Amino acid sequence: MRTIDWIDGHIELIDQTKLPGELVVRKVSDLDELIDDIKRLAVRGAPALGVSGGLGVALVAQQGLSGSDLEDAADRLANARPTAVNLSWGVKRVMQYASKGKDRILEEALKIRDEDIASCYSMGQYGADLMEELLGEGQHSVMTVCNTGGLACVERGTALGVIQTMFERGTLKEALPVETRPLLQGSRLTAWELQQMGAPYRLIVDSAGPFLLRRGFAQAFFAGADRIAANGDTANKIGTYSLSLGAKAMNLPVIIVAPESTIDMATKTGADIKIEDRGSEEVANFHGVRTAPEGTEAINPAFDVTPHENITAIVTDRRVIRIDRGETLATVPLGPIRTK
Amino acid sequence: MRTIDWIDGHIELIDQTKLPGELVVRKVSDLDELIDDIKRLAVRGAPALGVSGGLGVALVAQQGLSGSDLEDAADRLANARPTAVNLSWGVKRVMQYASKGKDRILEEALKIRDEDIASCYSMGQYGADLMEELLGEGQHSVMTVCNTGGLACVERGTALGVIQTMFERGTLKEALPVETRPLLQGSRLTAWELQQMGAPYRLIVDSAGPFLLRRGFAQAFFAGADRIAANGDTANKIGTYSLSLGAKAMNLPVIIVAPESTIDMATKTGADIKIEDRGSEEVANFHGVRTAPEGTEAINPAFDVTPHENITAIVTDRRVIRIDRGETLATVPLGPIRTK
Repeated sequence: MRTIDWIDGHIELIDQTKLPGELVVRKVSDLDELIDDIKRLAVRGAPALGVSGGLGVALVAQQGLSGSDLEDAADRLANARPTAVNLSWGVKRVMQYASKGKDRILEEALKIRDEDIASCYSMGQYGADLMEELLGEGQHSVMTVCNTGGLACVERGTALGVIQTMFERGTLKEALPVETRPLLQGSRLTAWELQQMGAPYRLIVDSAGPFLLRRGFAQAFFAGADRIAANGDTANKIGTYSLSLGAKAMNLPVIIVAPESTIDMATKTGADIKIEDRGSEEVANFHGVRTAPEGTEAINPAFDVTPHENITAIVTDRRVIRIDRGETLATVPLGPIRTK
Repeated sequence: MRTIDWIDGHIELIDQTKLPGELVVRKVSDLDELIDDIKRLAVRGAPALGVSGGLGVALVAQQGLSGSDLEDAADRLANARPTAVNLSWGVKRVMQYASKGKDRILEEALKIRDEDIASCYSMGQYGADLMEELLGEGQHSVMTVCNTGGLACVERGTALGVIQTMFERGTLKEALPVETRPLLQGSRLTAWELQQMGAPYRLIVDSAGPFLLRRGFAQAFFAGADRIAANGDTANKIGTYSLSLGAKAMNLPVIIVAPESTIDMATKTGADIKIEDRGSEEVANFHGVRTAPEGTEAINPAFDVTPHENITAIVTDRRVIRIDRGETLATVPLGPIRTK
């Protein structure tokens, strides 16, 4: 099942606000509905938003919009989430073909979708090969944080995509997702995806991760990335650094999985990455239930930075960079998008 | 207000499952109720469990139990929570006087209570002195896990008692309690106690702890202990190990604060400590709201073990053992209970 797709002249997407309780697939034939879905995070994740941008423009073009009407619609879509750069990137990429007609627009939107699928597939192959190289034959258990699966993309995902490939190859013993406070993407989304694919998994609280690595419950730690600096320092969901310390203490692999587009050579080190604080309420409340005394303030960094010295390897859709062997993003050449 | 006490022939205790929303004091006149309160964590924390063990035996002795009936009751109470050494310690201590009659048993149980109050005060003095020695003059911020305050004891507490002493001395800049999933003792109890004492604090999610230590938000990490093995390895609330790694990575002090009764010289190392798994439901739900898909199982260790090599010092009510200097529990002599 794809997170977002083009079926019989309309968009279909999984409403992620209903997970894990219910699997609701929405058929979207109206641009305002799509914009609303994006705003309320029914569809989320940078790659999935890129595809949404492309397909949204294609939708209204197929329905007959062109010229300045099409441009207006494209602008409204691109601004549904102004900070999500991939959304406007997807809109712009298909709007290059605005004058070529609705079929060329649709063709480009489907190309964005297909490229994302190919990229995730490729990361899975590179990553699963690396696991065999690092851990040897047989089955292994892996720990992961946040949601880096198909729900953030079209299919498969990044770090969770590698876990899926291991499962398909028969080399996954068990996946251990951490719940990922404060927003619980691990328990709400990653556990759901693992259940859908039929992979064995058990959920753990974030703080149990390092101890369970110490006790041998998993042999590697996989994470996605929000931004990778030129020296390999990686910004990702809060808790990634803590788990990297837990893995490092036991000499277990710490593997970052992300497409090439996540690498930002203009950012020299992790010290240059600005960390967003999302405020107190997410920490002091959950689903309207207050968990801390009234008046409690929190420090709530959305991301942390894992220094490159804690990272064994960075896996992209085009290459594997063995940080532990002194390889760097600047020197390892790009390889092919893997199709097997 | 005392967390647990003996009042007019029965036990009174604060029902900690109701905090921070409500302050409910339960009157307990029945052993099964007490065992249930211990199991559902209405009363928790190693020292408070020691007092509970003593007072529980005194309760049934006062009600007329003696001989093998008293021994059976004592066994049931001692086994209410198997990892908590203090519970069975409290039971055993008063059971030494089983043949001397109910009043001698009660006298001994009240002695445990009074000794705990004196012990917590003493730990606060030793601990705050150590902080001044390690961190120098001025104000410092400290991170802490779970609840180790008056609510874990009778008054003041262990690790949080040191923080209270620092606050009273004017050397506390800010306390950073971690929320402590799955049961949120940090946000529900520790934040409540810090608010009650008027100390400056901000709450953080567990997985943010190591990153915020890295970014300089606190200069030391304080934890309590459920059991300290002969070599200094310390069992404490899940997440303690993770935070010890975070502090160690930055060469910040990791201070374990616990009364002498927590030291178990019969347990050689942390590898010999049995870790209780509290089951899936605490992890798959958050305050009554289901967060993971139906059928999701969890690994839910209630405790972890921090190896002695991650510990700077163990502070008890009778001494400071500088593990970082090669001192051991076997060799550092006992000092006085500090009264100032």
